[in-house]
Amino acid sequence: MDDDTREAVMAATYRALCRHGYAELTTQRIADEWGKSKAALHYHYDTKEELLRAFLDYLLDRFESRLACESADPRVRLDSFVDAVFAPAEADDDSRAFAVALLELKAQAPYTEPYRDRLAALDERLRETVASAVRDGIEAGHFRAVDPDAVARFVVTAIDGAHVREVTLDESPAAGRRLVEAYLDDVLGRGNEPEVPV
Amino acid sequence: MDDDTREAVMAATYRALCRHGYAELTTQRIADEWGKSKAALHYHYDTKEELLRAFLDYLLDRFESRLACESADPRVRLDSFVDAVFAPAEADDDSRAFAVALLELKAQAPYTEPYRDRLAALDERLRETVASAVRDGIEAGHFRAVDPDAVARFVVTAIDGAHVREVTLDESPAAGRRLVEAYLDDVLGRGNEPEVPV
Repeated sequence: MDDDTREAVMAATYRALCRHGYAELTTQRIADEWGKSKAALHYHYDTKEELLRAFLDYLLDRFESRLACESADPRVRLDSFVDAVFAPAEADDDSRAFAVALLELKAQAPYTEPYRDRLAALDERLRETVASAVRDGIEAGHFRAVDPDAVARFVVTAIDGAHVREVTLDESPAAGRRLVEAYLDDVLGRGNEPEVPV
Repeated sequence: MDDDTREAVMAATYRALCRHGYAELTTQRIADEWGKSKAALHYHYDTKEELLRAFLDYLLDRFESRLACESADPRVRLDSFVDAVFAPAEADDDSRAFAVALLELKAQAPYTEPYRDRLAALDERLRETVASAVRDGIEAGHFRAVDPDAVARFVVTAIDGAHVREVTLDESPAAGRRLVEAYLDDVLGRGNEPEVPV
């Protein structure tokens, strides 16, 4: 399958998930969004699970590229991490619909090993990103000397919690973002540094 | 319906949820766990949704009674809150199965208003419990002068996140508990007080 086809099928999967939710998702509906036949879709992906496994890989890739900011300044890297997690790439309506579908998919993880594997990989990537920025920031004297892995664990847990609250309590992603930023300010002593002329 | 019947149906619902998960739950399966006919069950509850709405009320009641510790000492109240949230009332296997079913149910909240209402009520109760203990603890000089509502929001978000991680990443409830306790120690300055003879 060429890259354009993959991209088109993944975008169709995203739209179908937003429109129908996970439980009501079918390969027919994804094919409809793609604008091709179900047979054409099954030529590339045998089952809904296989397609969704590929979709999770695609999300992981996209997330990696949004994290591609390789600034030398760990403070900038931490900010762009928070952006990548909370600033929706899509329109607001889609972003809520996608959060809903993603929670349904997470709830299926105990029953579907390939989902579990991908979610674990994504989680590890998130934790590494935070821990490495915190570690470098401590070394550079920007942050307090905290345990980078413990801070990273707290941050990803708060992100997971904010996601659930967005879906079940209709809280805004902005509320989750404020919470994570306040935690980072607090624990790292961010924002307490004297202003340095650039 | 008398209290014994309600209790028996709710316990059967709990067991059926643990055994089959939310998606595969049927009133037939709940009736089987109850040991009576589906007709007998439908005499009390018209639909699966109505039954699960009652089940969420039942969970809320149970949680209230586990929080019944009305110690005058806010430190004790905060500890017993953490116990009530993380110490499973049931055997370990059931506790994991129930966490899985509860996440499925949370993922259905956007589609089912009565679930949303109950989850919002439970969340409010959790936040109030934490905020009031923190407020009293500050007043009594046990805790640092933080914003009680902000701390409560952090704690419930971390609890929500720990729940997702237990289900999707198979993390232990003990890991979530440690994270919440470390946060409370940190933010409230707990454990930094000089020992006072009792």
